[in-house]
Amino acid sequence: MTSADTSQATLFDWYTTNEDRVHKDYFRFLSYESISTDPDYKDQVLECAGFVEEELRSIGFAVERWTTSGHPTLYAEWLKAGTDKPTVLIYNHYDVQPVDPLELWKSPPFEPTVRDGEVYARGAQDNKGQCWYTLQALKALMERDGALPVNIKLCIEGEEECGSAGLAGILKQRAAQLRADFLLVVDVGIHSMDAPSITLGTRGLVAMTITATGSNTDMHSGSYGGIAYNPNHALIEILAKLRDADGRITVPGFYEGVQEPSAGFDLDFDTDAYRNMFESEPTGGEKAYPPGISGTLRPTLEVNGISGGYTGPGFKTVIPAQASAKVSCRLVPGQDPHVVGERVARHIESLAPKGVTISVALKPGGGIASQSRPDSAVAQAFRKAYEEVFQKPCASIVEGGSIPIAADLAKTAGAETLFVGLALPGDAIHAPNEHFGLDRLKKGFLIVARGLEHLGQTG
Amino acid sequence: MTSADTSQATLFDWYTTNEDRVHKDYFRFLSYESISTDPDYKDQVLECAGFVEEELRSIGFAVERWTTSGHPTLYAEWLKAGTDKPTVLIYNHYDVQPVDPLELWKSPPFEPTVRDGEVYARGAQDNKGQCWYTLQALKALMERDGALPVNIKLCIEGEEECGSAGLAGILKQRAAQLRADFLLVVDVGIHSMDAPSITLGTRGLVAMTITATGSNTDMHSGSYGGIAYNPNHALIEILAKLRDADGRITVPGFYEGVQEPSAGFDLDFDTDAYRNMFESEPTGGEKAYPPGISGTLRPTLEVNGISGGYTGPGFKTVIPAQASAKVSCRLVPGQDPHVVGERVARHIESLAPKGVTISVALKPGGGIASQSRPDSAVAQAFRKAYEEVFQKPCASIVEGGSIPIAADLAKTAGAETLFVGLALPGDAIHAPNEHFGLDRLKKGFLIVARGLEHLGQTG
Repeated sequence: MTSADTSQATLFDWYTTNEDRVHKDYFRFLSYESISTDPDYKDQVLECAGFVEEELRSIGFAVERWTTSGHPTLYAEWLKAGTDKPTVLIYNHYDVQPVDPLELWKSPPFEPTVRDGEVYARGAQDNKGQCWYTLQALKALMERDGALPVNIKLCIEGEEECGSAGLAGILKQRAAQLRADFLLVVDVGIHSMDAPSITLGTRGLVAMTITATGSNTDMHSGSYGGIAYNPNHALIEILAKLRDADGRITVPGFYEGVQEPSAGFDLDFDTDAYRNMFESEPTGGEKAYPPGISGTLRPTLEVNGISGGYTGPGFKTVIPAQASAKVSCRLVPGQDPHVVGERVARHIESLAPKGVTISVALKPGGGIASQSRPDSAVAQAFRKAYEEVFQKPCASIVEGGSIPIAADLAKTAGAETLFVGLALPGDAIHAPNEHFGLDRLKKGFLIVARGLEHLGQTG
Repeated sequence: MTSADTSQATLFDWYTTNEDRVHKDYFRFLSYESISTDPDYKDQVLECAGFVEEELRSIGFAVERWTTSGHPTLYAEWLKAGTDKPTVLIYNHYDVQPVDPLELWKSPPFEPTVRDGEVYARGAQDNKGQCWYTLQALKALMERDGALPVNIKLCIEGEEECGSAGLAGILKQRAAQLRADFLLVVDVGIHSMDAPSITLGTRGLVAMTITATGSNTDMHSGSYGGIAYNPNHALIEILAKLRDADGRITVPGFYEGVQEPSAGFDLDFDTDAYRNMFESEPTGGEKAYPPGISGTLRPTLEVNGISGGYTGPGFKTVIPAQASAKVSCRLVPGQDPHVVGERVARHIESLAPKGVTISVALKPGGGIASQSRPDSAVAQAFRKAYEEVFQKPCASIVEGGSIPIAADLAKTAGAETLFVGLALPGDAIHAPNEHFGLDRLKKGFLIVARGLEHLGQTG
């Protein structure tokens, strides 16, 4: 038995012994309605933070609750591995997305339910599941060895799902505490259980709300159809103009600074798997790029929500006073969220037709894209851990989603970033019936523990 | 004193004597939540029908409750004026529009409240107010004279606000009962209290719901932006293509059969009044026509509602599984609702991009446009009544709205149509804070009573 085998075996043993408690407390974590974007859930978010705080203390961390402009960030550290060992800042979040449409959930989103080995709940994967196995890995190492293989700082925030404005606002002030050699973001995934991978980059994000105002009241579409400029029409016409027939964004300067996708990543896209999972074709990107690239290394502009007039049962022949839309852009390296946001906003406003007022409110926060080296020590250590646990070669991919705070956090910490995780495309995150597998909870636990051990050996 | 003066004076007296009861029962009529489009209100619609039935009986009418596929139609007749007198079929409706957004109502929509002489309630004008003064005119004539000046048939339906499918379905079967010389539709208005008018036509209507389906689940717009075809985008792109930069509808064959607007109508449009009322510019119509024409004698296509993705507080970076819109077209003489509806639906479906399924459900019902002669006996009689009551010249206008059943009803009855009423542009019908003036309730009462008297004299 190699020492790697021995370590894995003892971690397995720990997990088996503790499995009931691990599951029970994971379910408890999932029961907190920590929806960060909706002010109505403020108390539940705080209660959830309290739960995580307790877990951190039970592992042996010194914990601080950092006050922010929004929900608190939890900071914890254990720095007794020695100065010859690297310091790893682990990022995670305890907040979740809203749950609507509620009627499509097969079991209540905050009552975790296991079906066929999958746990169904809001946050089951994103990101309470991934946070939970990370904490259990640290707990197991500490209980087994009385120490951790590297120095660990944990930064677990409560606003990832609404833009991380609170954490972003205190980065400068907390810079000394956050300093680290590596930033490990446990909030991404792999393409399938047959294709383990580490993630070398994520896209950035900027979002905005657009409001079209036609008049001071809803109008009758008979009496005023052909007279009033319907704000639904103004909004539709403007939004339709933002992309050309080839799926390219038409906002002037939108692609400024964007580099053509380079090699060094595994960007295969499994069209058949996509078809099977979503019963649809992957036709939404720029026609000039295959989906594996347009969904990762190219920026996007998506209308996440649109609403105007009457959409209830039956019909109401109305010209609404207002209509609105929520739009977000995914960004790639070279794009600044503030600059791109302003350009999109000003362009949208410039398209207002006479008779309709268009206003755009940029969402505070956002974030730049992350991209890191395939050969960093942290990348090598975790690639090894994935290969050990999966017994398969580990690819290096780029994630299309965003962890908006990651790049700023890495800059503040002076750290090299790696994204890891065991999300799968079918987990329905941000959607009804989000789920995460109990097998993945255990595999994630092993990967984090073994990855940190490998990193400790390179230190 | 002329006989016209005498008649007006005695009608005035009747109104003054009965004013308290007229108001009290009008408010009671308004308190019924007779929202026809929403199945949840079925019982309230029926209760409202019962109230109208009682009122009709109290006047001296023989009343029948006609069963339809939906809400019942009330039919009443009094045919003792003699065979030398014309028979007038009066059309009206007792149903109302939905009330959302409820939070914008200053007083509850079904608790009529008087502010500055205006009654605020859903249906205060459209069309319970106009129905009510019509019934009170008949009641006054009957109480004063023991008879009516013409033979009267009343057809008061409960589905005008959702397409009149029920009444349309029984027209053939009821044709003998509905036969009349004239059809008087008391459901329109005038441009201002300084500009009395009769209405010689209305636009037709066809409506549909469009559903865009991208996949079988909501998706994360980071992971799948640039891969999935967002159904919001598909819907926006399709709807934006339905009108060109000049506001002309681009659906092939849409304008087939449409005649260029002819003279004979007073189609002035008061842009200043529009600006003052709506704080907006009347820029929504075809650029080739002024608003007075594009809002009355030209067909339209309006997006009455659109909805897709997340539009609640905060943000949700989602690509929704589905998005939908409700679209209606106002039609002019020469356009068949069924033909136009099919053309619009097929055209919309033909614009579906690869990766998104588009389906269009045409709303049953709809209706063709009405247009009648300026010199008919009924037009002359009511022009005279308006001039008497307003002491001003009476114009002949065309209404942009639709009373979808009117043309079919006229055809069934073999009748010549006239549209009358005292709606004003600022009444906020189909919108929050709908209202109708108590002064107009009385003027409407006088116009109906005197118009029928004049018509009786020409018979």
